[in-house]
Amino acid sequence: MLLAKHPVISVNGNTAVLVPEETRKLAELVNAKVEINVFHHSPERVEKIKRYLEKHGIEVLAAGDAVLEGLESARRIVDSRGILIADVVLVPLEDGDRCEILKRHGKKVIAIDLNPLSRTARMADITIVDNIIRAFPKMVEMAEEMRKWERERLKEVVENYDNSKVLAEAVEGIIQYLQKVKGELLSP
Amino acid sequence: MLLAKHPVISVNGNTAVLVPEETRKLAELVNAKVEINVFHHSPERVEKIKRYLEKHGIEVLAAGDAVLEGLESARRIVDSRGILIADVVLVPLEDGDRCEILKRHGKKVIAIDLNPLSRTARMADITIVDNIIRAFPKMVEMAEEMRKWERERLKEVVENYDNSKVLAEAVEGIIQYLQKVKGELLSP
Repeated sequence: MLLAKHPVISVNGNTAVLVPEETRKLAELVNAKVEINVFHHSPERVEKIKRYLEKHGIEVLAAGDAVLEGLESARRIVDSRGILIADVVLVPLEDGDRCEILKRHGKKVIAIDLNPLSRTARMADITIVDNIIRAFPKMVEMAEEMRKWERERLKEVVENYDNSKVLAEAVEGIIQYLQKVKGELLSP
Repeated sequence: MLLAKHPVISVNGNTAVLVPEETRKLAELVNAKVEINVFHHSPERVEKIKRYLEKHGIEVLAAGDAVLEGLESARRIVDSRGILIADVVLVPLEDGDRCEILKRHGKKVIAIDLNPLSRTARMADITIVDNIIRAFPKMVEMAEEMRKWERERLKEVVENYDNSKVLAEAVEGIIQYLQKVKGELLSP
């Protein structure tokens, strides 16, 4: 996100309620726009989320003046200053088919997903296999540190990043847990 | 169920719709009562499920004239000729706290659950880790065969049965699958 031209944090109701402070901090640190994007759209709902985020000092995009072709859900309704022109989109809580469309529109997607085998987790460029409540504070911390880095050093990180390896590590974590459970089941 | 005095198959709307024929066959083969037991109760819903099962030739209990102490949900409403006096209850699609209560009331519980680590799966006396659409036809087939067996032989099967081992095997199956996925993620 620090290397992106137009990074956008896509926020829905859950994200807004769960990590408003961290959303503000992260957006400031990586110079990202915050856009409201919901699966079930209603002007009242978007307005409510907007007011909530603004109360936390976040400047919010929610114009809904553009459409992301290829999506059936309300997630297609985007802001022409935000997701439409974004090169990197952070999708903290995903719900299905959006990741693929964002990628087809040429965007890099950073997803946060508890399930390393979900469609989103496997389609994203970067998948953070975690809960946003844990992930966001950590991302803020890392952004604070990494924003001081040279662009060359950041580029190196991105170039050496292998999402399949990260997913495989998460799967290995689950395997380890299941091995433990299995052992417990078999111990008298 | 073949050894039970009062075996009951507890059926909710999903089970009724998914495996009505197999429910009838299984009930006949093991001489079990079929009782409607739902999480969200309404007389209309129970009546609808009842009519649907009766259309498939099933004699249905749904008097709702007794209460299973210890349960908050509508699952507590039972039939005095069915679950209340049952010694073995088959719960094909479970939704939480019922298994524990059934056990506290001295009943043996056979659960069908896709998740071998769920509360129900771990509390049941026998857990069939599968989808009811696959499990029910198989159970009918096995009942057709096993009803010809001597009681002694059936008792031996029950005595040698180890649910923890069965759950451990199911967990091992998931581990194998995850190992495969992990391998695919890491192969170039």
